[in-house]
Amino acid sequence: MTSFKAPAEDILFSLNHVADAARLDEWDAVIASDILNHFAPFAESVIAPLNAVGDEQGAQLQNGRVRMPEGFGNAFAQLAAGGWQGLAAPEEYGGMGLSSVYGAGVSEIFSGANHALQMVCNLVPGAIATLQRFGSQKQQDTWIPGLADGSVLSTMCLTEPAAGSDLSAIRTTAKPDQDGWVLNGEKIFISGGDQDLSDDILHLVLARSGPADAGIVGLSLFLCRRQPAARVTRLEGKLGLHASPTCQMLFDDAKAELVGEEGAGLKAMFTLMNHARLDVALQGVAHAARAADITASYAAERKQGRGADGATAVLHDHADVRRMIETQRMLELGSRALCHIALVELELGNRPELVEFLTPLCKVLGSEAGIQAADLGIQVLGGYGYLKEYGIEQIWRDARICAIYEGANGIHTRSLATRGLRSGGADGFETLCRELAGHDERVRPTLARWATVKDEIAAAKDATELAHRFYRLTADLALRAVWARIDAVADAHSDARVLKALAAKILNTQEVLM
Amino acid sequence: MTSFKAPAEDILFSLNHVADAARLDEWDAVIASDILNHFAPFAESVIAPLNAVGDEQGAQLQNGRVRMPEGFGNAFAQLAAGGWQGLAAPEEYGGMGLSSVYGAGVSEIFSGANHALQMVCNLVPGAIATLQRFGSQKQQDTWIPGLADGSVLSTMCLTEPAAGSDLSAIRTTAKPDQDGWVLNGEKIFISGGDQDLSDDILHLVLARSGPADAGIVGLSLFLCRRQPAARVTRLEGKLGLHASPTCQMLFDDAKAELVGEEGAGLKAMFTLMNHARLDVALQGVAHAARAADITASYAAERKQGRGADGATAVLHDHADVRRMIETQRMLELGSRALCHIALVELELGNRPELVEFLTPLCKVLGSEAGIQAADLGIQVLGGYGYLKEYGIEQIWRDARICAIYEGANGIHTRSLATRGLRSGGADGFETLCRELAGHDERVRPTLARWATVKDEIAAAKDATELAHRFYRLTADLALRAVWARIDAVADAHSDARVLKALAAKILNTQEVLM
Repeated sequence: MTSFKAPAEDILFSLNHVADAARLDEWDAVIASDILNHFAPFAESVIAPLNAVGDEQGAQLQNGRVRMPEGFGNAFAQLAAGGWQGLAAPEEYGGMGLSSVYGAGVSEIFSGANHALQMVCNLVPGAIATLQRFGSQKQQDTWIPGLADGSVLSTMCLTEPAAGSDLSAIRTTAKPDQDGWVLNGEKIFISGGDQDLSDDILHLVLARSGPADAGIVGLSLFLCRRQPAARVTRLEGKLGLHASPTCQMLFDDAKAELVGEEGAGLKAMFTLMNHARLDVALQGVAHAARAADITASYAAERKQGRGADGATAVLHDHADVRRMIETQRMLELGSRALCHIALVELELGNRPELVEFLTPLCKVLGSEAGIQAADLGIQVLGGYGYLKEYGIEQIWRDARICAIYEGANGIHTRSLATRGLRSGGADGFETLCRELAGHDERVRPTLARWATVKDEIAAAKDATELAHRFYRLTADLALRAVWARIDAVADAHSDARVLKALAAKILNTQEVLM
Repeated sequence: MTSFKAPAEDILFSLNHVADAARLDEWDAVIASDILNHFAPFAESVIAPLNAVGDEQGAQLQNGRVRMPEGFGNAFAQLAAGGWQGLAAPEEYGGMGLSSVYGAGVSEIFSGANHALQMVCNLVPGAIATLQRFGSQKQQDTWIPGLADGSVLSTMCLTEPAAGSDLSAIRTTAKPDQDGWVLNGEKIFISGGDQDLSDDILHLVLARSGPADAGIVGLSLFLCRRQPAARVTRLEGKLGLHASPTCQMLFDDAKAELVGEEGAGLKAMFTLMNHARLDVALQGVAHAARAADITASYAAERKQGRGADGATAVLHDHADVRRMIETQRMLELGSRALCHIALVELELGNRPELVEFLTPLCKVLGSEAGIQAADLGIQVLGGYGYLKEYGIEQIWRDARICAIYEGANGIHTRSLATRGLRSGGADGFETLCRELAGHDERVRPTLARWATVKDEIAAAKDATELAHRFYRLTADLALRAVWARIDAVADAHSDARVLKALAAKILNTQEVLM
């Protein structure tokens, strides 16, 4: 198996030159480079080697406690000791106080090295943000230091057997108790619902504090620490992410504290979720990057057939193989750029409708990029791609969840075609694409086609029927626009010639996504 | 998990009405119906329940012998006792002497029920055909009765570590021995290289009887029975098809017999391979059918959100879910129809260039249909689709090999754009599409677009660069043409209304494959 190589240069190029992170006051390109080049060797030497081990052993439920695979505890201890869990935590709580734009680079490298371990660790920045925004001073003082130093990991307890995409159906109840609340109910698909990495676990639980028929209005957010009354009843057997324990949890008179206002649980949870969506998009990007790297290395070495001159050829000499490798890079760099642009716009804060439009777009595009790039990698490696030992099939299996969790992709494409059009987000997106394309004429026909379809959808009786088509065209436009931008700034990358050649292909093709 | 339901009606409708199998002298619709309706309950009750068991236990290598998962031996014994292994074998050898068009229906149901077991059993018809065409009378008398009654299963030993898609690099040697030949070399990816289902195994081995540098001219086909000198050295750990033992085999002075003429091995092997390609296409169709069935059942029952009227909705009420389910059926029925048309044309025998064009097209389209339908199924089932217990993720993992084995799909798309255009196969395909479309005007724009691209490619310096695009457009045209035909004959199906509505959508959409 090709060893994991962190795409630090690609990430820094994307943040600095494509997304122009320098627009942020807090941005320092030297710090960003230091951070990524410090994290990269750690991810390569400590985290990545556990990826296949974790897939093979999986997390196990033993006597009611989850046991992580061999080596995970040690790796997490090093991660925590390095201060990486506190990257986004305020300095007064022992963190580094860095914005999520820095975190995005670290998180992507982490996911590429070991998505399962990243899953278990990476709900922490969202939990910290939620506590900062909605938690009491005491809750912040109690929990943020532990979250920042790795003695506490957190979970997000939303889904129930009858409430997946539709949270209004949540049945877990919260009743006032003498000195707080008690929770009763069953939650499913809880990532890291238990593990043996951290001393304590902070569950953020969405539960019904109001009447049973009050829909989302009756939902509140609770903080519930690990306790015997909140226990794992089952681990799911999954297609991938075997080392990430996906738990069924039973809350049986579990003691809890209210976070924020009663009835405002969904609003608080959305803070957690918007974070998580861009993080999922970057998980997809990470898989695309890892798949592209394995594939390109293999294709450059594997002998296959003969060239037109009769000499022995390698896989990369075959047109269809090159097409697949180029598609991987197109997806990787294109979706990464879009995620970085969304993060920078999120931090800038002056185009909220645009951010609301870009978030679901990134979630779908990034997750699809990871899955498709892995799939293409399997195809290029052929019979070997189907074997476990080359690692590319694990990438596909792990990446596949990204299109499902944090809102199934169909929910996000619907949101683009409905709320996205109504809110002005689509107009903001059009403006962004014009900005990215600059003077590049090659994006113009797609912009025109996109505008026509957008008007068609705005006039349609049922926009949801057209949502998938609208997403495809929107993603096509976004990819062309960011690639026009990559083309314009390519000289800042050590591989400028290759990027420019790829940009030319993308900007001249009829169909970017196929 | 939804129980396996054999798509017998869909298959018979496709053979009788879409592919018009009655054009064949040997076709009898009553016999076809009897066969499928006899095999269907056997597949449903005996073969299908072993599918998940096989995935979980996998085939195991113990003391040099392969052990199949629990229950496989018993199921195979029933299959053999039912005479199903001899469907295509001549009656004088104890078979049923039925053409491969009947076999296609059985084989598809078998694959849908349990692809791994089908893999191990279903190289037999190709082996029988190869012996009939190239074997000596003695070889036929010796082997065909056992192949037909299930006491013998067969393998196809082509691939070597340095010779995958490029068979000219084969290094396994065949040297004349006193009373025959001896083989020496290593073969990989040998499905069913060993198993404990049949009393004996017949390996058909491609080996070099001529000088090392003679390329494909030096290759001959050999028959090599199971013996200690032909042993399994390793079982591969794979993404899917766990119950199908994929073996590395070492031939170490293994005794063998020449089949056919020396140096004509590749020609003989191609008989086996063309059969196998259409069989792989139908494996893909089978996966598409199974995925579509699981998905539709789930979506009809799973409550999700609310409709416009405020009433509780099920998944199927959501536009994007319907789109995914319809795409599955479009792929399933469309690719099945094309395979059946190819098989009928193969048996008719008067349009060989068309068959040469349709075979790779079916291989790619059928395999992609299976993978994509399974992928859509995972997406519709959401978090549950990612779990092992719903069975849809196994379909994806098993289906994924179809795009790789029997010639990676990229090899077949290249063949469409090169040999297919040169040989007149593309012209035959155009004629076929016009025949299928009949008076349906809706196929016309695609026909025109396809013809333009075809001319572009014929004039291109390097057709291989355009092969993928040509395949996409060719598949799009083929699907529209067969769906125009399905629309025209839909009244023969019990679900005529639904098929016609789906045909209308497909024929009016801009992009069939997306």
